[in-house]
Order: sequence, then structure tokens, then C-alpha cells
Amino acid sequence: MNQTTQSTKTFAVIGTGVIGNGWIARFLANGHDVVAFDPAEGAEEKTRRAVELAWPSLEEIGLAEGATIDRLRFVPTIEEAVAQADLIQENVPEREELKKSVLASIDQHSKPNAIIGSSTSGIMPSTLQEGLLHPERLVVAHPFNPVYILPLVELVGGKATSQETINAAKEVYAAIQMKPLVIRKEIEGHLADRLMEALWREALHMVNDGVATTEEVDAAIIYGAGLRWAQMGPFLTFHLAGGEQGMRHMLQQFGPALKQPWTKLVAPELTDELKERVIEGCESHAGDASIAELESKRNEFLVRVLDLVEDYWPETKSIAKRGE
Amino acid sequence: MNQTTQSTKTFAVIGTGVIGNGWIARFLANGHDVVAFDPAEGAEEKTRRAVELAWPSLEEIGLAEGATIDRLRFVPTIEEAVAQADLIQENVPEREELKKSVLASIDQHSKPNAIIGSSTSGIMPSTLQEGLLHPERLVVAHPFNPVYILPLVELVGGKATSQETINAAKEVYAAIQMKPLVIRKEIEGHLADRLMEALWREALHMVNDGVATTEEVDAAIIYGAGLRWAQMGPFLTFHLAGGEQGMRHMLQQFGPALKQPWTKLVAPELTDELKERVIEGCESHAGDASIAELESKRNEFLVRVLDLVEDYWPETKSIAKRGE
Repeated sequence: MNQTTQSTKTFAVIGTGVIGNGWIARFLANGHDVVAFDPAEGAEEKTRRAVELAWPSLEEIGLAEGATIDRLRFVPTIEEAVAQADLIQENVPEREELKKSVLASIDQHSKPNAIIGSSTSGIMPSTLQEGLLHPERLVVAHPFNPVYILPLVELVGGKATSQETINAAKEVYAAIQMKPLVIRKEIEGHLADRLMEALWREALHMVNDGVATTEEVDAAIIYGAGLRWAQMGPFLTFHLAGGEQGMRHMLQQFGPALKQPWTKLVAPELTDELKERVIEGCESHAGDASIAELESKRNEFLVRVLDLVEDYWPETKSIAKRGE
Repeated sequence: MNQTTQSTKTFAVIGTGVIGNGWIARFLANGHDVVAFDPAEGAEEKTRRAVELAWPSLEEIGLAEGATIDRLRFVPTIEEAVAQADLIQENVPEREELKKSVLASIDQHSKPNAIIGSSTSGIMPSTLQEGLLHPERLVVAHPFNPVYILPLVELVGGKATSQETINAAKEVYAAIQMKPLVIRKEIEGHLADRLMEALWREALHMVNDGVATTEEVDAAIIYGAGLRWAQMGPFLTFHLAGGEQGMRHMLQQFGPALKQPWTKLVAPELTDELKERVIEGCESHAGDASIAELESKRNEFLVRVLDLVEDYWPETKSIAKRGE
């Protein structure tokens, strides 16, 4: 336990779907107070169940001093949720007008120096901060599911975001055991989702064209590139595949392949038939296991992979585990 | 050790670059005799050094009974290399005419019922088998670097490939601790490389556009999707991200994003400037570590990740480790 330098903060979470609940679990496990708001029927009950399901993984990763589920409080209005918050995390559905109206309300009722982090996976921060009273403190802080285990959070500033906000956001997310990655230019889909989306579109084509089932596509990732990508990204992977000359040799050898029609380039039409093929593929792959069972298996695995990443990439120390 | 049902076979390896040497190490570790041919100056010495570097990982995975580096023999001609082989693995450079001429020579001098596996990463088997005497026994068997650790091998039959060959190839590669994935239709780049190529092209765009450095792109993969992809492919990952409704909900929610310009669609021009940016990014990321040091770190990591995958995905038993 190494919490002497970290002060307790109040985090507000607006919108408690899968992502909002993931943030709540992470904030609580790091010893903070969390105030949550979601207008949906039964939202609080769902959140408490989600946090309880996440808790064993968080215990294994290591809880901060004083961390407890009891420090979560649901309130009936946005105003009340954000009034005392140091960081407000927005996770409402991915519709521009809805997000802008919720952010305006957050902006109006929070302390002017509170950071507002939006979990948007695609909308640019310059768009989200239009019309805010204090646009300089809005930053996209885009996490990855499961938010309470995966360390990546993309930080993207818009035209009006201040450097102080970016710096403060880096610090606050790093303090809750995350890997903040500041993206240099705002673009739709930020960085990680663009990379995933490219692979995802090609995967849909492969299923659409009958080249592979969803399960076969998954196997083509897991048993090859996936095992490498847990430790190294595409660039360093290719650097190693090039022999002693590294990337220099790789680009000579495989550069010409960029000219070949090796990807479909445009996303396939999401027809009903393709939808069914994808859905049935996943359901049959999952077999008798419930989503909850699969999630728990995934969580155990990820916690252990994080340990490995930490062992083999020393610069990740302090991200995955606390108190070591 | 559970080798009672596996008979010793003779494997020929034609072309001993990074991939050919990876095959040699895997074949030897599985207790087979290997005969190798490569016309390059100093090829044998390089291969022996590569196999020695791979051996500690192979020992940790578990050697087959009687497995030893001493069962590798270099010969001065293709004819001699393939004469007694049960499986011939072709790994010459990725140029169609060169591959076809080498394959014709392999075809001519080998036992007619020997399987010929080509490691080509992009060329279709129907093209490679044109003009062979026994085209029915040619199959693309495309592995992933490091071949002696990663279990995936894509098996792709061409128009003339017999079902017997596909079945026999599945058996022989599975017997050397691999995960053979039969691809349903031949296309350029097969399956896994298409998925990787889509991500790779987008990654190059991100670097080209100044959105991220190569190291940042790598971080955007490793700390998020990469950790998941070691265990689950893109489809099952999204199935879990959809909550209780799984993929059905995901496609409703994120299907519309397929219409958004979230990928660049066409590969960027590989200008000298982009090349340098990519190369320097990798070299600076690797720091003082030599490629060999990085490889050894990667290998240790992969061996341990394979253990985890095996623990959490029972259907992978027998792929990663032998004798358990």
C-alpha cells in the first residue's frame, strides 16, 4: 500500500451503463467517494450488482486504503451529483445532442475548476465543448472495457481545452492506476478505436464473404497476433519480425504489400443476414456460458496478464498493481 | 510426456530466413528429423544460432522425447532435402515466380504423397500449384512469428488441393502443438494477415498524420485491446461489451459507426519521410535493448501468456504445452 501522497477526491459519474459502472468500480477501488446519477429505472441496483461482480478482480489487483463499495452514493439529479466533485466522468449514450445537453448541465452546476472527462468513443472534444461556460476544463477521457481492469485511457483535448486541464487529467487518471495516453490531434474515433475499427470492418467482411466464421476470425487473432499484442503493439512487433535490421528491413520487404488489395477498404453493408450470422456465431461460440461467467473468466485472465506485462515491461510498474 | 501415438517423421525446410528457422526449431522440439536447404552464404550457421536462441523457450514449453538440435541436417540441394521428407515446408522470399520455381523442384524430387506446405503470407495456393505434377498435395500453411511459440497456422487449399491433404495437414500441424485453422476460401493475404493489415494501414496513417508516434500507437493497442486479444478475438470481445444482450446490442449501438469515416480506408503513401518516422520511432522505443534481448523478453512473456490462455480456455489444452 502506497497511498501517502494521494488525497481522497470526490468523483461524479453521470450515466451508469457498462462504461459508467466500470468507472465507478475503478474510482471506488482507488479509495475515492463516488456520487452517481442515471435517470434510468433501477439504475442504482444494476450499478451495485456490477460493482460487486467487479470487486473480486479489484481485490486481486489490490484495493486502496479505505476503499469500499459503501462510498458510492446515488443522487436524483445531475446538479446534486456534480456539485462537490473534483472529477466528473460523463458516460451517456453516444448521441451528440444528448451529450452536449448533459455536458452543459454538468458545466453549469459544478465547481469551475472541476475536470470534466467525457467517455465518448468517437465525438471530438471541440464539438462537445461548444457553448460551455468553462470549456477549457473539458477533455475526452476514453476508457476501454472492462474499465476497472484495462489501464488505457485516451486523453484528447479540443480547441478550447487548456494545457492545465490535460496535465491535471493525466495526473488524476494516472493516480487511479491508469495509463493516460495524450492524443496529439483530435480526430473522429480518437486513436485506439480507429485501429480497432479498421480490424473490425475487415473482420465483418471476412464473415460476410464466407471466408471465416466469427469464431474462426477470433481464433485467427488469439493464437497469433493477439498473444503478441498483449505485450507489443503493431510497430514493435514488426520491428522484431524484421531480423537484426528491424523495421528498416520490414518496410523494404512488406512495404509493397500496402499497394495490394489486402483489405476491403470500405465497411460492408450491415444486412440483416450479416447481423444474424455475427450474432449467432458469437452465441454459439459462447455455448452454455453466460455473459457473467465469460466476464469473470476474462477478468481473472486479464489480471494475470497485467502481472505478466508488468514483469516484462518495467515501464508499466505502478499501472497494473498498487503497493508493490 | 505423451508421445506414444506420435511417430517420428522427417521434415524438410526449404528457405531458412526468420520463418524457416522458426519452423526448424518447432520441428526439432517436437522430436522430428529436419533436413534443411538454403543457397545463401552462411545459412547453416545462422540457422543453428537461431535454433539455439529459441531452445530455452522450447524447453520451457516442453521438449518431445528424443528432441535434439543434433537432428538437424543441412544439405546442398533441394533434391536431397526433400527426397525422404514426409512434410516439406517452403519459406523462400515472397515472390511469385521464385516460389513457383522452387515448388516445381520440390514437387519433382519428393515422394508423391509428401505434403508440401507453403509459408506464403499472401499468395493464393491455386496460383502456387499451377503446373505441379502433384498439385493436390500443396497447401498453404502460414505460420506467425515466432513460429516456435505461436500456435496459429492457417491452412488454405487451392482449387487442386485434395481434402485428404487438408485433413493430413491438420493432423500433422496439430501434432506439433499448433492450432491449425482451415480457411474456407482462398483470398490474397488469407485471413489473419488481412485483419492485421487493416490495423497496420490505419496505424501508418495515424503516424503519417501526426496523431500519434509509433510508440503511442503501440501503447494504444497494448494497454487496451491487446490485453483482451490475447484471450478473445474481436467478435467475442464485442459480445461481452454489449452487456446481457451481447452482440445483438453491440450491433444496434455501434452498427451506425460503420458508416462514419473512422478509418482512412486506403493505405498511406509510404514516403521516405513516413518510413523514417516509423523506423526512428521503433528504434527509439527499443532504446538500448538489442533485437535479441527484446526477442528473449518476448519469448518468456509469450510462453507464460500461453499458460494463461490454456488455463482459461480449456479447448486450447494440448496446444501450448505438451505432457500435461
